[in-house]
Amino acid sequence: MEKMKAFTEYLWFQTQERRALVNITETLGRLVEKSGIKEGLCLVSAMHITAGIWVNDEEPGLKEDLMDWLERLAPVSDYRHHQTGEDNGDAHLKRTLLGAQATLPVTAGRLDLGPWEQIFYAEFDGRRRKRVIVKILGQ
Amino acid sequence: MEKMKAFTEYLWFQTQERRALVNITETLGRLVEKSGIKEGLCLVSAMHITAGIWVNDEEPGLKEDLMDWLERLAPVSDYRHHQTGEDNGDAHLKRTLLGAQATLPVTAGRLDLGPWEQIFYAEFDGRRRKRVIVKILGQ
Amino acid sequence: MEKMKAFTEYLWFQTQERRALVNITETLGRLVEKSGIKEGLCLVSAMHITAGIWVNDEEPGLKEDLMDWLERLAPVSDYRHHQTGEDNGDAHLKRTLLGAQATLPVTAGRLDLGPWEQIFYAEFDGRRRKRVIVKILGQ
Repeated sequence: MEKMKAFTEYLWFQTQERRALVNITETLGRLVEKSGIKEGLCLVSAMHITAGIWVNDEEPGLKEDLMDWLERLAPVSDYRHHQTGEDNGDAHLKRTLLGAQATLPVTAGRLDLGPWEQIFYAEFDGRRRKRVIVKILGQ
Repeated sequence: MEKMKAFTEYLWFQTQERRALVNITETLGRLVEKSGIKEGLCLVSAMHITAGIWVNDEEPGLKEDLMDWLERLAPVSDYRHHQTGEDNGDAHLKRTLLGAQATLPVTAGRLDLGPWEQIFYAEFDGRRRKRVIVKILGQ
Repeated sequence: MEKMKAFTEYLWFQTQERRALVNITETLGRLVEKSGIKEGLCLVSAMHITAGIWVNDEEPGLKEDLMDWLERLAPVSDYRHHQTGEDNGDAHLKRTLLGAQATLPVTAGRLDLGPWEQIFYAEFDGRRRKRVIVKILGQ
């Protein structure tokens, strides 16, 4: 019979650029280790609604492709949202397109990722402090 | 050593409009309280394949921006799916674009959301009864 | 007081076509049964970054509509990523658009799906062996 554990930590980001991809794979690996959880699920979720989480390749060209593609499908433009004084309507849509979160498997005390899976914090309206929650549930 | 609990509830929706965004944040908060779970993960998933879940801002302009953007990227059109007699091909694609589900962290007995995170049921082919499952796992 | 269990299995795919949708709903149902878990969450996640998971309808016309739509929004094209020698930039973006994973509720020992929900492995750069992880956490 196994003990159930829950582990929570918050990551803070303040990117220098308005848009950025920050590789957090190693950070997440350390948190899994710190949690002591051997088998479970690790939720990684952007708590601000103009940021997201991307699971893909650490390849500079692809990261530029992603950002260009997001701009093409969810461009900087005039949005109704800007009538509130905001200017980040595109960032809300880019987060929606990319996805706000990922749930990562934990097996034998480690993130159980494919050979090229890397986890990125995706910022679309940065230059201010924003949080990501990491919540691991397991045993 | 902690007890593990699982809590399940189904939310029913029948929107008057074909497309709608229904804020379910307070409903979910009450279910977390009812579950008695203090630490865990709360899955919210649209059980019908022409609806989804959106985590973003309760701002009327942005909600219109979202719906316009979904229509631009996944428009009402002629789809092969309509050869079955259906007319909702766009709604299947809109759900795919938006996302069908969210997993929400539960900390200290409450949904652990960012300052502007609100949870919406997103309906793209309404006017009939449809379900969302809420499943909370934790302790 | 309930026992917590974790169950892990890997599904392997090698599709004959470069792009394919493979219905894995029955396979997942069998794994839930094999796990012995009655109440929990089942994570299904594509471990390769040019594949995803789609939860939608088993209807041939709609499946073609989906693939056409993904091609329209994330087309085969010249991408910076191809300077590495790869030719699958579109497949990375298609996975991003579709989503890489789903978390499925398990209730009373079975996948708790809506009436038309079917789970698909979505391959965008196939003809080689690739994996999906299935991780079920519960009691």
